[in-house]
Amino acid sequence: MSRNVAIVGVGHSKFGVRNDVSLPELAWESIKMALNDAGIEQKDIGYVVVSNVGGWSSEPLPAVVINEYAGICPTGTVRVEAACASGSAAVKLAYDMVASGHVDIAMAVGVEKMNESPTPTVVEFIGRAGNYFWEFQNFGLTFPGYYALYMTAYMNKYNAKEEDFCKVAVKNHYYGARNPKAQFQKEITVEKCMASRYIAWPIKLYDSSPITDGSAAVILASEEVAKQLTDSPVWIRAIGYASDTSNLSKRENFTSLKAGYLAGERAYKMAGIDKENVLKVFDVAEVHDCFTIAEVMAYEDLGFAKRGEGIEMIRNEETYIGGKIPVNLSGGLKAKGHPIAATGEGMIAELTNQLLSRVEKDRQAPIKNGYALAHNIGGTGHYAYVTILSLSKS
Amino acid sequence: MSRNVAIVGVGHSKFGVRNDVSLPELAWESIKMALNDAGIEQKDIGYVVVSNVGGWSSEPLPAVVINEYAGICPTGTVRVEAACASGSAAVKLAYDMVASGHVDIAMAVGVEKMNESPTPTVVEFIGRAGNYFWEFQNFGLTFPGYYALYMTAYMNKYNAKEEDFCKVAVKNHYYGARNPKAQFQKEITVEKCMASRYIAWPIKLYDSSPITDGSAAVILASEEVAKQLTDSPVWIRAIGYASDTSNLSKRENFTSLKAGYLAGERAYKMAGIDKENVLKVFDVAEVHDCFTIAEVMAYEDLGFAKRGEGIEMIRNEETYIGGKIPVNLSGGLKAKGHPIAATGEGMIAELTNQLLSRVEKDRQAPIKNGYALAHNIGGTGHYAYVTILSLSKS
Repeated sequence: MSRNVAIVGVGHSKFGVRNDVSLPELAWESIKMALNDAGIEQKDIGYVVVSNVGGWSSEPLPAVVINEYAGICPTGTVRVEAACASGSAAVKLAYDMVASGHVDIAMAVGVEKMNESPTPTVVEFIGRAGNYFWEFQNFGLTFPGYYALYMTAYMNKYNAKEEDFCKVAVKNHYYGARNPKAQFQKEITVEKCMASRYIAWPIKLYDSSPITDGSAAVILASEEVAKQLTDSPVWIRAIGYASDTSNLSKRENFTSLKAGYLAGERAYKMAGIDKENVLKVFDVAEVHDCFTIAEVMAYEDLGFAKRGEGIEMIRNEETYIGGKIPVNLSGGLKAKGHPIAATGEGMIAELTNQLLSRVEKDRQAPIKNGYALAHNIGGTGHYAYVTILSLSKS
Repeated sequence: MSRNVAIVGVGHSKFGVRNDVSLPELAWESIKMALNDAGIEQKDIGYVVVSNVGGWSSEPLPAVVINEYAGICPTGTVRVEAACASGSAAVKLAYDMVASGHVDIAMAVGVEKMNESPTPTVVEFIGRAGNYFWEFQNFGLTFPGYYALYMTAYMNKYNAKEEDFCKVAVKNHYYGARNPKAQFQKEITVEKCMASRYIAWPIKLYDSSPITDGSAAVILASEEVAKQLTDSPVWIRAIGYASDTSNLSKRENFTSLKAGYLAGERAYKMAGIDKENVLKVFDVAEVHDCFTIAEVMAYEDLGFAKRGEGIEMIRNEETYIGGKIPVNLSGGLKAKGHPIAATGEGMIAELTNQLLSRVEKDRQAPIKNGYALAHNIGGTGHYAYVTILSLSKS
């Protein structure tokens, strides 16, 4: 019943501290790139979904400010927020819109300028990204603190060590060093990670993604229009999604993000993929490594590894190129950076480029089956979106 | 190609100063009502779109807090913002989702607790709802100030008087007095309106909608599911939308909101309605009367009146029941109240009840053709959404 939907253009700004540009200028970097990639103009777009959290921005209507600057008016628009999964939510809504037949071309653009605010303000704002009323205000939980609960539970249950988690950071910095768009372009060692200061034990500075400015854009089109625009469409085969309680105290366990698990199940079902076979299906994946523990849980929630064996995958370097499934070849949130509402479009832009074999050679995954997966978490698993892309339509 | 989509349940809280409830409790009032109206449970819903602007709220992730409280987890969710049109944008996205076939039932729920913040903070925040960087910070324009530019231009071009605009407030208070959900339930006179203090000349206190807490919810279903749930579905026949420049200094004229006009054109085209005939088609409408001038411009942008003749419609009481087209029988934003991100769902819930002839008798429009229209503006015409509802499917 649904129409097939393809990605026909992507754009991705340099991530990092971007005091050189304003919010709309930063968004335009990606929009311009995506328009050029698709070979279309602004007027060809039927609807624009802007993802931006932006509590640190002085502009409370970021979508209209961005759309005026980008020459998109009078096209219809909206801003969406699903915490750190806002970008994937924007792609999902643009996807529905094209699939429904209401428009033929839609764009999702994510942008965030987190460095506009003083760091303590950003940290407080992100700390509220759970249940402010109970857990932040009453118990003083910060965002690294939330994930520290998961990391300690995982370490305890599966006998994992801090050094093991540092290997996630080492891998992602290794690939970030090869990505000119990444915020951090240098390799690190387990020793350097272990020597970094604690943010919320056992999470250290090098277990954590940075505060980032950046943007990314994805243009979607119906099958008919996609065929006119490009010989190399990348098809959206499924988007799964789920939510979880705002209060962490109501969660069932602390070694898995249930919403991430459920979003994966839904996506696999929609795409007709047997979860037992995922390692045989996907050529490459981007997963949400806001902290190193999150990447390990993602391996297990998505079925890349059995419960408790995610940590083995990273110990054995099975998520590097040449391993069972290469993960976060962009550098991930850890090294590429995490401009929160642009992260989802950033993952999908990266995977589109991976599937089309057009990223830097030393971080290009070998493309065999032509399948890729983006796993994007909002908050501490409050939101989750899993997007499956493919070079084949069905 | 698109699937038909019907409204199968609506809910609407009491609007006003709601210090008696928290944000999730306020949302739940409408969600519960809508679930009961549809005869379904939370688990039956495939996706929830939450509209909330909420710069005055301490919860930066309102959707997850609301969804936990309302028992909606682990259903997928997102928060959307399109300024004062957020609610209609939420309905539009839920509509796409059901029309696409990706889910069979989706809910849009809007909620706002504006009175959580001190009044000067709310006024400043709303003042930023344009282009903060240029027009608010540099020129000190406030939100009533923006609309005052339109009102003075209209008065000058069409020889309209302040008294004429007061008649919009008188009508909307007349109907608000008959709506138990309204924030203001008493009638006013032109004299009382004229005697109220200036906020931004020529806009007076009684030309202005209030600061409101409230929620509203709309549940949508595919044709197949709607038929199982109800004998009286209300069909969404079209949703039109458009945007305009964030800087008012770039607008072409100040006697019309171009985005509102374009959203109407798009909606009429999608619904197959000849704009020349709108007065013969629609039994009732809700239009965006954040200030009285906005209702008059809406008459003209939507084709209820020719350019310059909107003011005649209100002078001649043609938008009361019995006139050419009854408008804002809920009391409108002016008297029912304007909890900004809940206003859109509030309009659509009201019109659903009007079409089903289930509102209070003395404010019930006679339903002849079974068509209704909701016109919802964000900012000063930065966003616009026009939704057309009908008792007939096609």
